[in-house]
Amino acid sequence: MIKFCKLCGSDINYKTPEGDSIKRAVCLNCNSIDYENPKIIAGILPVYRNEILLCQRAIDPKKNKWTIPSGFLELGETIEEGALREAKEEAGISPNITQLYCIFNLPHIGQVYMLYLATLTQKKASPGIETKSVEFFSFDTIPWSDIAFSSVDFILRNYISDYPSKNFPLRSEYSINKVINE
Amino acid sequence: MIKFCKLCGSDINYKTPEGDSIKRAVCLNCNSIDYENPKIIAGILPVYRNEILLCQRAIDPKKNKWTIPSGFLELGETIEEGALREAKEEAGISPNITQLYCIFNLPHIGQVYMLYLATLTQKKASPGIETKSVEFFSFDTIPWSDIAFSSVDFILRNYISDYPSKNFPLRSEYSINKVINE
Repeated sequence: MIKFCKLCGSDINYKTPEGDSIKRAVCLNCNSIDYENPKIIAGILPVYRNEILLCQRAIDPKKNKWTIPSGFLELGETIEEGALREAKEEAGISPNITQLYCIFNLPHIGQVYMLYLATLTQKKASPGIETKSVEFFSFDTIPWSDIAFSSVDFILRNYISDYPSKNFPLRSEYSINKVINE
Repeated sequence: MIKFCKLCGSDINYKTPEGDSIKRAVCLNCNSIDYENPKIIAGILPVYRNEILLCQRAIDPKKNKWTIPSGFLELGETIEEGALREAKEEAGISPNITQLYCIFNLPHIGQVYMLYLATLTQKKASPGIETKSVEFFSFDTIPWSDIAFSSVDFILRNYISDYPSKNFPLRSEYSINKVINE
């Protein structure tokens, strides 16, 4: 909730501007509008041969749970650049992106996950500051009960399901109820 | 540029928080951080048989130029819902989305275009408040010199190029130089 104008510091009033259909944060002094929109989380599923690299979180939320490298897209980045930055920061890897694989909408919290498949040429990774440990998992050793987020569960299940065909069509999901451990 | 804290109205200082690598808008009083991230523009290329529906803009920027229904994704929406809302608002249509087709990154202005292909069951549309007129174009009548945005040029050229094969692989582009009429 926005209380003060970021440009002039005056009080904000939530109201529907003329010609608009949504309540916005409008400044009572300078009339500027502070638009609030969903944010993109860029992420990567790093694969080495038939193993998947997961990261154990060192921080809350979901400390000690397993996730994939991902984080908020920053200004000045393309989505792929953001995903590769997170891979470097959280797992010390520079994989090769092969394709966009999953789009996971979380409209109730204003987030859209854009998750890419990426391959590693070496079975090697190192945890970054937000990561407690990194580990390569074969499909039958995935720690399903300790997966951090529903988006991670979604991409893992799809990947393992699609893997035999070696065909990975874009998977898109709208999730509000399918929330795992959240 | 953020000058005042949206939560307490105090002065903002841009600095790199501990554990971060990017300068953020940090409040000098309450220490809260106002994160700035790219925004999603959701859009649709509406197709009726072998014709494309374009909208002539009634407003600036690019007044009188031709575009496709598109706009900022709103909180609470999935990307597809946002694209369909824009189609309804700007062209009075409720097409059927068939697939995600283009991702167009504009990192220098913090925007990501997510553009879907959609089919219409009727050759019928009506301009909304931001639209001067709507018109169906066959491929050889596209008003190339009056296309409003580089993202629209991108999806149109790809669609016409891919059309003979009836195969529309996801097209992703990072654009900073390929700016048309901008």
